[in-house]
Amino acid sequence: MASESSNGTWTEVVTMSDRIRALSARAYRFEGGWVRVAYPRDLFEPGSLPQVWSSIAGNVFGMKALRGLRLEDVYWPRWLVDSFPGPGRGISGLREIMKVEGRPLLATVPKPKVGMTTEEHVRAAVEVWSGGVDLLKDDENLTDQPFNRFEERVRETLRARDAVEAETGERKSYLVNITAPYREMERRARLVSDLGGEFVMVDILTSGWSALQSIRELCADLGLAIHAHRAFHAAFTRNPRHGVSMKVVAESARLAGVDTLHVGTVVGKLVSPVEEVRALARILRDPKSDEDPDLRLLRKDWGSLKPALPVSSGGLHPGLMPDVIRILGRDIMIQAGGGVMGHPDGPRAGAAAVRRAVEAVVAGETLEDAARDSPELRRALEHWGRLRPV
Amino acid sequence: MASESSNGTWTEVVTMSDRIRALSARAYRFEGGWVRVAYPRDLFEPGSLPQVWSSIAGNVFGMKALRGLRLEDVYWPRWLVDSFPGPGRGISGLREIMKVEGRPLLATVPKPKVGMTTEEHVRAAVEVWSGGVDLLKDDENLTDQPFNRFEERVRETLRARDAVEAETGERKSYLVNITAPYREMERRARLVSDLGGEFVMVDILTSGWSALQSIRELCADLGLAIHAHRAFHAAFTRNPRHGVSMKVVAESARLAGVDTLHVGTVVGKLVSPVEEVRALARILRDPKSDEDPDLRLLRKDWGSLKPALPVSSGGLHPGLMPDVIRILGRDIMIQAGGGVMGHPDGPRAGAAAVRRAVEAVVAGETLEDAARDSPELRRALEHWGRLRPV
Repeated sequence: MASESSNGTWTEVVTMSDRIRALSARAYRFEGGWVRVAYPRDLFEPGSLPQVWSSIAGNVFGMKALRGLRLEDVYWPRWLVDSFPGPGRGISGLREIMKVEGRPLLATVPKPKVGMTTEEHVRAAVEVWSGGVDLLKDDENLTDQPFNRFEERVRETLRARDAVEAETGERKSYLVNITAPYREMERRARLVSDLGGEFVMVDILTSGWSALQSIRELCADLGLAIHAHRAFHAAFTRNPRHGVSMKVVAESARLAGVDTLHVGTVVGKLVSPVEEVRALARILRDPKSDEDPDLRLLRKDWGSLKPALPVSSGGLHPGLMPDVIRILGRDIMIQAGGGVMGHPDGPRAGAAAVRRAVEAVVAGETLEDAARDSPELRRALEHWGRLRPV
Repeated sequence: MASESSNGTWTEVVTMSDRIRALSARAYRFEGGWVRVAYPRDLFEPGSLPQVWSSIAGNVFGMKALRGLRLEDVYWPRWLVDSFPGPGRGISGLREIMKVEGRPLLATVPKPKVGMTTEEHVRAAVEVWSGGVDLLKDDENLTDQPFNRFEERVRETLRARDAVEAETGERKSYLVNITAPYREMERRARLVSDLGGEFVMVDILTSGWSALQSIRELCADLGLAIHAHRAFHAAFTRNPRHGVSMKVVAESARLAGVDTLHVGTVVGKLVSPVEEVRALARILRDPKSDEDPDLRLLRKDWGSLKPALPVSSGGLHPGLMPDVIRILGRDIMIQAGGGVMGHPDGPRAGAAAVRRAVEAVVAGETLEDAARDSPELRRALEHWGRLRPV
């Protein structure tokens, strides 16, 4: 495995030399079924995630000699870390944009996630923003469809945003899904900027590392923050004995420079074990950390790279806020779609309920106490209780 | 699963309407553990692979409600097929570039795959071209490293190419790995074109669909063909009960417009079952095909999209040529790295041996017969025999 992912081939070649042999990777520590592999620095192109992934996460997964192979974590040496830009805004930058301190940022995906017309979409946006949510988010498969065209949606939604800001006195923003072939993605990012947006959203795995790294450059020029969706990850992260862990995805995303990344919920509808979610939060937020065998995390040193904001989403509603904040802390984005839109009294009530629930948890109140002055939260708790969706 | 990959959420929402409900996906046929899902057309953005993948290969793999999920094949309706460009050159275009008819194209990756200096790389190139190989290929993890800089490598290699063409009277070319962050990938593609190259190579999965689709556009302007490497695929294609099949990768690659794609060898060092390899060859080459339950292939109709050339590589050497051509036919690229470079008499002899072996198979001769007039092939057969590397 070390050979295939560095300079090896299956047979002897006369072109091998001592100088080239010194570029071989070495498997050097075997513990509990895991092996560590050390790679010489010169094998890698600094600042290129596609090249690094092709090296250490390329052909090796298909080797007949192995029944399965899991890339569980990577130690990123400082010279390699320093070759990447990291997040452009980072957590404090996002809090500055939104003028929200001390509590999680709140986002809602209008549901049904695809199908609403632009008009319906804008109406839902106004409801959830007015109810108390900070950010509207497109879902991963909403881009530019006949029922809801990209340009019109962005224009109308940001226009409505300005009105809600004036009315509520709060900052509101919109995570606009610009996922597309790269040149179109650039066009869409410029459009978001021209129309007054602060965020773009990218499906980073179905778009790919190459596009993400270049869109990060453009976003720096435009002053846009990047919200990263991880759709597709579970196709290769879920099997604990094969593929690449979500940790390595999160590390790569922080290097490339996303400002936020979905990390799971522990308690929601998608698979996300608590150790994994904790590890992902550390990867995104910590400036550096020691090796942690419990989380199967190698040592990290992110140098001057800003921290990114973990996003918890997928089947969340107000009754789950205490669990999510206990597990992940306050420096997160909580995103509830169905758990806002599905409130029995409608999206505005749903937004108010989730906002009140989050403020309660941060203030050390119980949800039941908080529900006394919030009919919206009371109704939400009656409706969903502490249900953990499957 | 149908719900999560279309317009569903985990709870009821008041914003659901009859119009939106008509956009739901439907699971409609259950056979032997497989289910078919039909999606309404409006869910998809034509011409955007990232959007299609985020829809049908996104969150679904992480659903707690499923222990595992395999996207085995996709029927691509004609309106969607027609929204993609397909290969720019296609098989006949590649044969025109190389002026090779009636036999597989032959490529070699200089091995060790990383570590050679530019000078060593050029020397190896001259040897294998002179010995009879058509194409030199960079390996998936060779891009721009300190020991072998991109620009110098391309310039010197293409200069040497011109000399070998003059000497042999045959066309020779070079599959140049331009894998990088997108903007740099564009810069490298232009450089290849400026320096007289005909091909770029892209690690399509570690770069991603978004970059691939846009580089296809640029390559059309520059007149470059695209060689696609599939490094990373086995991280999500290998487990038969989870992830996405290599068939869907190949279909997406043909839509995006690669001219060649690695499909496996059956007999080499990487996992590639014979049914899969046969299915991939059909996907890349056939203009249309009926449903094939044995290959678990749905119906295909590629409209006016050109065919792409399947590439067989990974642990190949002359003794395996009869097997590979029997399984895949003549319209393929055969790529031998160690099986050329590792010849006991060196790379030039290795190239001559593999060329003679391929010509023998195409002419209906046995390798043993052919070895009588080819000392290089005789030595190769003595050295490796019919060895299937593990």
